[in-house]
Amino acid sequence: MPELRKDPITREWVIIATERARRPDQFNHKRQAEIVVTKDHSTCPFCPGNEAMTPPEVLAYRPGGTAPNQPGWTLRVVPNAFPALNLESSWGRRDAGIYDTMGGYGVHEVIVEHPDHQQEMWTMDDQAVEDILWACRDRYVDLKRDDRLLHIMIFRNHGRVAGASIQHPHSQLVGTPFVPQMIWHELQGAQQYVDYRDTCAFCDVVQDELRNGERLISANDHFVCVAPYASKVPFETSIIPKRHNGCFANMTREEVRALASILKDLKGRLAACLDDPPYNHTFHTAPIREENNPHFHWHLSILPRLTIAAGFELGTGIYINVTPPEEAAHYLRETTLPSDKRGAG
Amino acid sequence: MPELRKDPITREWVIIATERARRPDQFNHKRQAEIVVTKDHSTCPFCPGNEAMTPPEVLAYRPGGTAPNQPGWTLRVVPNAFPALNLESSWGRRDAGIYDTMGGYGVHEVIVEHPDHQQEMWTMDDQAVEDILWACRDRYVDLKRDDRLLHIMIFRNHGRVAGASIQHPHSQLVGTPFVPQMIWHELQGAQQYVDYRDTCAFCDVVQDELRNGERLISANDHFVCVAPYASKVPFETSIIPKRHNGCFANMTREEVRALASILKDLKGRLAACLDDPPYNHTFHTAPIREENNPHFHWHLSILPRLTIAAGFELGTGIYINVTPPEEAAHYLRETTLPSDKRGAG
Repeated sequence: MPELRKDPITREWVIIATERARRPDQFNHKRQAEIVVTKDHSTCPFCPGNEAMTPPEVLAYRPGGTAPNQPGWTLRVVPNAFPALNLESSWGRRDAGIYDTMGGYGVHEVIVEHPDHQQEMWTMDDQAVEDILWACRDRYVDLKRDDRLLHIMIFRNHGRVAGASIQHPHSQLVGTPFVPQMIWHELQGAQQYVDYRDTCAFCDVVQDELRNGERLISANDHFVCVAPYASKVPFETSIIPKRHNGCFANMTREEVRALASILKDLKGRLAACLDDPPYNHTFHTAPIREENNPHFHWHLSILPRLTIAAGFELGTGIYINVTPPEEAAHYLRETTLPSDKRGAG
Repeated sequence: MPELRKDPITREWVIIATERARRPDQFNHKRQAEIVVTKDHSTCPFCPGNEAMTPPEVLAYRPGGTAPNQPGWTLRVVPNAFPALNLESSWGRRDAGIYDTMGGYGVHEVIVEHPDHQQEMWTMDDQAVEDILWACRDRYVDLKRDDRLLHIMIFRNHGRVAGASIQHPHSQLVGTPFVPQMIWHELQGAQQYVDYRDTCAFCDVVQDELRNGERLISANDHFVCVAPYASKVPFETSIIPKRHNGCFANMTREEVRALASILKDLKGRLAACLDDPPYNHTFHTAPIREENNPHFHWHLSILPRLTIAAGFELGTGIYINVTPPEEAAHYLRETTLPSDKRGAG
């Protein structure tokens, strides 16, 4: 069973995967470039017809009304077969001398975004992208009823360098029995900004970036997409809602549609501008019990994985970014989206 | 000139390298596996005879008394030819509307550890490893006289995956005009531990790990080497001095010798156990103006780069470690050091 451990100095939690422990000879760092992501439909656990290769689904969109765990779905959510945390682990603190630990209670699910193995977010039709967002919301709303979970992180890994081992388009969701340190840190930072300036930091950023325009990539009625002023990595982008709202699951129907549109557009721009880069995207939403915290403002962060964090970054937390965000925004704005890749939307 | 920018929410600084800005077509992420590190002596800027390929040296150990910037050195420190921060940049805050910024004032040096391109820390003789530590100390003592610098981070990148682009053995040093966020965070954590328990967290860890033994890799009169209880990555290790001391530059001569010995031994164990893994090591030492802070306890952190941090890690700060530290310590303790690789020591 996985175990949660807290660093005595930094107070940061780590997940120790005690069950699927890897031995020294199982890392093969010298042959990493040879590791093949699952590209073959017959062995892909997320392809239609292979439903038995995953744990039973917890949600599926089946317009034709087909039976669970059979083909016919347009989107499918299943428990992760190799979960970081799981519902069978114990919940709550344990004694560990000078250290802090707790059981690896939590949830880890996979959102299989589309039946077609070859689709990317920017090639899907608009409805499919909207459906991904609805599925994230549906699972969030269901899981938050478990009062042992304090936060739900939804994220997407694209490309091997970004940690994806399966090519088939999918997102993931991890519910934790504590508030992750980075979310907590953002919540504190947002609070300090309010204390100091009496306004929301994110609302200020939205206004400033719309007015300034230098770092603006795109905008619609409900969202702005920017290269953040203090971008950690080249071509980092943030999608921020114009409406002050702490929890992504409180989006209106119109906002979901607007997010799908700006997200698909951004993914197309990144792919065209940077030759389909590896990236991670992460939903920064308030802790479940802080959904109505007046200081937080949810947002989506997209980090292309074009450079390597080395000793300086790992030791200090200071990133060296070799592409100023103003230039990144310029390139992404000027990118021509190949219309043949834009899908039906 | 590089520019420092602060994130308005997390209050974390980033370095924006405005001069050597990389364009979209300069990342070549699809051909990363083909990137060759500088292995050829004739093109290696750190090999003897190629001294003119680096900026003029700021320190060199020349037992034969040879002329500066000529062969004959056993160790050489030069300014980084592509510095993250530099002394020509302005120092101090600037106005940037709702954002915070300052000039990229700072220092970035390279410690060329050995004249022989092929040596590794575990193959050098003991004196050479001691000399590396003395050189780090010499540069620290010299640089701390600049009262615009508030911290000096010394680190080492080994292997391409860990960010090294040159194979020749070298460490680096970056002096910043602010205290890096992670050092600040550790200082705060150490303070909170003292406030709560009235003892030093690191002293407690040293005592506990020596008594428990499960996570102990090695120890000598002055240092312990452990796999930390809350290791973020497989085979993470920390070397912690037994004596409570905030600043690595305050080591005694005997402590320097003991550190060289335990560090060389650990690097040999990692290389033998994990087939010469890529890694970063970082010196966590107190901020310059906090050298005598009674709460901090300097230490050395070694992070092998065997796994990839993906969206979950980047979004939450929570690492999923697939090798429990107790198992990592066991493997590293049991590793047989190939005597033919142990050099003269």
